[in-house]
Amino acid sequence: MNTLAIGIDIGATKIAAVLVTAEGQVLEARHLPTLPQRGPAAVLDDIGTEINRLSAVANAYGGNLQGVGMGSPGLVNPVEGSVRNAVNLGWEEVFLVREVQARLSTPLPVWIEKDTNAAALGEYYWGAARGCEDFVFLGIGSGLGGGIIAHGDLIRGADGNAAEVGHIALDPEHGRLCACGLRGCVETVVSGPGLVAVARRLLAAQAHPTHLSVEAVQEAHAVVQAAAAGDPLALAAIDEVAAALTTLVAFIVGLLNPARIVIGGGLGLAIFDHLRARLQRDLPRRVLPASHQNLHIVASQLQNPALGAACLVWQAARRAEKKGGGR
Amino acid sequence: MNTLAIGIDIGATKIAAVLVTAEGQVLEARHLPTLPQRGPAAVLDDIGTEINRLSAVANAYGGNLQGVGMGSPGLVNPVEGSVRNAVNLGWEEVFLVREVQARLSTPLPVWIEKDTNAAALGEYYWGAARGCEDFVFLGIGSGLGGGIIAHGDLIRGADGNAAEVGHIALDPEHGRLCACGLRGCVETVVSGPGLVAVARRLLAAQAHPTHLSVEAVQEAHAVVQAAAAGDPLALAAIDEVAAALTTLVAFIVGLLNPARIVIGGGLGLAIFDHLRARLQRDLPRRVLPASHQNLHIVASQLQNPALGAACLVWQAARRAEKKGGGR
Repeated sequence: MNTLAIGIDIGATKIAAVLVTAEGQVLEARHLPTLPQRGPAAVLDDIGTEINRLSAVANAYGGNLQGVGMGSPGLVNPVEGSVRNAVNLGWEEVFLVREVQARLSTPLPVWIEKDTNAAALGEYYWGAARGCEDFVFLGIGSGLGGGIIAHGDLIRGADGNAAEVGHIALDPEHGRLCACGLRGCVETVVSGPGLVAVARRLLAAQAHPTHLSVEAVQEAHAVVQAAAAGDPLALAAIDEVAAALTTLVAFIVGLLNPARIVIGGGLGLAIFDHLRARLQRDLPRRVLPASHQNLHIVASQLQNPALGAACLVWQAARRAEKKGGGR
Repeated sequence: MNTLAIGIDIGATKIAAVLVTAEGQVLEARHLPTLPQRGPAAVLDDIGTEINRLSAVANAYGGNLQGVGMGSPGLVNPVEGSVRNAVNLGWEEVFLVREVQARLSTPLPVWIEKDTNAAALGEYYWGAARGCEDFVFLGIGSGLGGGIIAHGDLIRGADGNAAEVGHIALDPEHGRLCACGLRGCVETVVSGPGLVAVARRLLAAQAHPTHLSVEAVQEAHAVVQAAAAGDPLALAAIDEVAAALTTLVAFIVGLLNPARIVIGGGLGLAIFDHLRARLQRDLPRRVLPASHQNLHIVASQLQNPALGAACLVWQAARRAEKKGGGR
């Protein structure tokens, strides 16, 4: 009998749901619009309905469904099962595990993690970090998030807030104001909106020839496309993003000595070659050879964020096994 | 019957050795001069002789001696039992475990770790981080080293080089040349020699009133003493060290969300109040409240580095137990 898990990734625009086997085979995958403006209850209803549907599919397969893993934005407390400050969802405080379980027609264990922690687990089980016990995932998209795996375990930190890589201030004096209220966070540069802001600053400074105009630079995509066509200003803007990422990665590498940095997210994948080239060039000036000589910078291979969420089920089983062996 | 361990800390000037119980009771403690200029063989002979002596003492106590833990400077590979690039010892490559075991009159298991990793374990078992599963130890003395404990486990990194906090370059362009060959490493500021260099630069710039002279500033102690007497330049120099430490700690806190930062080392303890005040003032501008609001900055409580080394024996037993419970 197949061991199965359900994975749910809650994004601001869409909810991804999958039913997978322990080998990573996807039996069913679906995307629903999130429509968070309806309020948390409606979104939770949709998630509950989807889990009930996938649970029925698991039954039809005659599979042994182990539970549900969910990845969420915001500050996630996996122990109490809560999500706070999920700005893009408009959630101030939602007791996600309890609310979802209340909507299930058949009781199932439910685990939650920060979405980028789930993504890191997904890369570990089925993506770009298979068999790699020490790596850091960095997701660069509308924001910048991370997930740390050390010795094969997800590192959560004392309060579940490890890998808040986007909100470390590189320049707390003169940096750009971040949505979080701090100044000069890594995310104000290393993210889609960060790239746009850098490009607009360079446009205003008129320091590089370019075919771009302020009107054309509404989103990161325009800068990425211009860079692909060789636009000097677009290339300089991407290089500035890469430089800020290098500072962050130098600290990651010096602190954690990972074997891999896995770069994902829409923007991260779109400019991956630029980022890797800059990291490979500059890391040797930032950290000891012993820290980086075996490091590989690789691109995310996980196609669906819900796959990472499903891995919470396998991770929970692994932790339970370990606990069985003593403290 | 008492469970016992031997701990050995290999320093550039002295070797500390202890025989301890699992409860941290010290049955015997000794310090020997290292005299590394004699070459590795003579130092290894002394270590072997000391372990044999402590092993006999353990027998006399009727104790159950579990093994030997050793902390060493340099790049330590705990898996192959080697030490490389221990500059202050003049060791290029020493297979420490094998060499020590060859000198034992009774066979014993021997574990080694980077000295600051052993110190972190010592704080965890018997020091300032008892019962704390997530913390980072920072030792500030003649250099700057660290040790990371996450979820109760020592984080070693892919190649055993995690927590190389001293050699992350804050300013790879214009920073001071570090002994490691990089420029602007955290250690070039946050260390005894770092404090001396900062004070001398401030003296040359004549930007602060002071009673200090270049001749008086030969070592950190003079600056610390002057600061205690209210000397403005000495205070400014210490503040510069604290600012560089804050940058490092911001990354540590954002990445790992530890519950405590434990500050040790001769200089770290001497200026602990300055460092803590600056960290508490500035971290809120560098990382999210969620990352630092439960953080405590505490002073090291471990009296003898050999105690930390002895903890390698307990950590190995704990790992073996965990392994017994599955992957």
